[in-house]
Amino acid sequence: MNIEDKLKPLREQIDALDAQILVLLNRRAEVAQEVGHVKAETNAPVFRPEREVQVLRKVAENNPGPLQAGDVQTIFREVMSACRALEKRVVVAYLGPAGTFSEQAVYQQFGHSVEGMACVSIDEVFRAAEAGTADFGVVPIENSSEGVINRTLDLLLQTTLNISGEVSMPVHHSLMTKNGTMDGITRICAHSQALAQCNAWLNQHFPNIERIAVASNAEAARMARDDASVAAIAGEIAAQTYDVLIVHAHIQDDPHNRTRFAVIGHLQTNPSGKDQTSLVLSVQNKAGAVYKLLSPLSTHDVSMTRFESRPARTGAWEYFFYVDVEGHEQDENVAKALAELKQNAAFFKLLGSYPFSL
Amino acid sequence: MNIEDKLKPLREQIDALDAQILVLLNRRAEVAQEVGHVKAETNAPVFRPEREVQVLRKVAENNPGPLQAGDVQTIFREVMSACRALEKRVVVAYLGPAGTFSEQAVYQQFGHSVEGMACVSIDEVFRAAEAGTADFGVVPIENSSEGVINRTLDLLLQTTLNISGEVSMPVHHSLMTKNGTMDGITRICAHSQALAQCNAWLNQHFPNIERIAVASNAEAARMARDDASVAAIAGEIAAQTYDVLIVHAHIQDDPHNRTRFAVIGHLQTNPSGKDQTSLVLSVQNKAGAVYKLLSPLSTHDVSMTRFESRPARTGAWEYFFYVDVEGHEQDENVAKALAELKQNAAFFKLLGSYPFSL
Repeated sequence: MNIEDKLKPLREQIDALDAQILVLLNRRAEVAQEVGHVKAETNAPVFRPEREVQVLRKVAENNPGPLQAGDVQTIFREVMSACRALEKRVVVAYLGPAGTFSEQAVYQQFGHSVEGMACVSIDEVFRAAEAGTADFGVVPIENSSEGVINRTLDLLLQTTLNISGEVSMPVHHSLMTKNGTMDGITRICAHSQALAQCNAWLNQHFPNIERIAVASNAEAARMARDDASVAAIAGEIAAQTYDVLIVHAHIQDDPHNRTRFAVIGHLQTNPSGKDQTSLVLSVQNKAGAVYKLLSPLSTHDVSMTRFESRPARTGAWEYFFYVDVEGHEQDENVAKALAELKQNAAFFKLLGSYPFSL
Repeated sequence: MNIEDKLKPLREQIDALDAQILVLLNRRAEVAQEVGHVKAETNAPVFRPEREVQVLRKVAENNPGPLQAGDVQTIFREVMSACRALEKRVVVAYLGPAGTFSEQAVYQQFGHSVEGMACVSIDEVFRAAEAGTADFGVVPIENSSEGVINRTLDLLLQTTLNISGEVSMPVHHSLMTKNGTMDGITRICAHSQALAQCNAWLNQHFPNIERIAVASNAEAARMARDDASVAAIAGEIAAQTYDVLIVHAHIQDDPHNRTRFAVIGHLQTNPSGKDQTSLVLSVQNKAGAVYKLLSPLSTHDVSMTRFESRPARTGAWEYFFYVDVEGHEQDENVAKALAELKQNAAFFKLLGSYPFSL
């Protein structure tokens, strides 16, 4: 019996299963259309991040195998995207150009059955979502090499939009120089975070070359282009942008380094069961004021997962504090903590509650 | 009855369907694993492009709706990718950096359950696939703005690899200048193909500005960066690379403009039912020699779909001709035509037979 004869009955089984799956997928789509009709009666939103994330968590939990849970989630993300597209092909603005990580972040959140809208700036992404030209926007918010994206934080302060979801994408650091070798290199430049993230690798491979923290990895790549004694650590895309050559790819100590994107829109996301809440606060600058301000969190047993400070431009207060906490604003303990925070803060803005990314 | 009460039974139906789909997907994966065991006995390849394209064509044909055929194909591409990953996570080399169209082309061919390997040059992609570091490579072969990718054509001439598939991705042209406006612009520069592809739009919007064909769109973007009187037409990514600003996005007359990528590997793809065959020929440079050389194609009723000539560096012949024809090398008429072509050509190399991209 040759291999094709052995494979034929198995392939027939697969084809029969595919036919069944195809029927069920379309039956699912029909029910999703009914959901759409119900929603249309009350102008309820087509995209419900908390519902989609619940479905994805459920299929991963119930997955009997042998398929891997993550791969099953990728399939169901596309299933939901295709069903959603029958009601409305959701339009998502992102920081262009097309063909970059930002576009991939759009697909990771919404599946491929969406309409991506490449914008030339973060400001334009916000405008498109605020004006309704796009249903949602996807903006970078924190980058393990560049730190927080200041422009996004500033715009979040003013916008009427909510954060309705987050996307997290893997990030890699590479070592790059003008001529693609380490000959004659006396300094390795990068953002301090990137230097820290490649610390073990650098100690092992180039323990004797001086490391210098600069404003950003892009700045480091620019320096490497203009100075043959400088090596830069930056993302691969910087090598292309600044016309330098990669000496070693993927040198970060933690291969799970990630960039976070915020999904912004008019939508207020309902609780999914595993959520976080982002807010901005400020306080008059007195010693200890910040710690006192945040005390309602511990009082109500709310964990803080992120804390960023950012100079205010107004002069009225010295800093804005960007805080992420575990839980949804509708959770009782979170609601109480937020109410107290608001009372004591000179400035308070809730940015949104949304599911933790998968 | 409020909206959540109306949605609840529908969501329960969806959850029940998802549970059934999940079971069938895993049953499919089990059969795919059996396929893997049969293949392992004879070292048969895990990835069979002709089989996958047949499955995708079949689900599109049999799709009862309401889901759109293209969206159903996206779902099944991920299903096959996830099943394949149980046997082996296929490693695919591509022209990096990560986060570009080349990476997206990998996912479009293989689904997301693969291991992408970003390479710094087209040469390195070929090397990785030749050495077996990667199972396949994905290289750009033809670009509607830059024409053919010469380096890929040159490497195809020498490689022991076959073309085992193709991927086609949409391409957009944008108009860009140093300061983001058309004030003071006296020339619009681009590759001649890009100028042609934006002809109607340019006639309508800027009929009186001189158009100048340059070597490539990247060159045009570089000129725009250095000269405030020049506007360039190029892909959005060039605006980022050359630090110029987009004035108008997506100005190409045909929104279906595409870039082609070749999938290269040791695999010889079997017939899928709708295939093409790529080959390279040369002939001594006599008047009419090319036309005479190609006559076996018409004799055996084989349609030529693409014809590119490229100067040979050897000096022994004047040109290499890159020819694509309809049909598979195993088809009787194609096999006869190829045998005759080979007999008459000074140089003949079969690059591979593979399915038309979806």
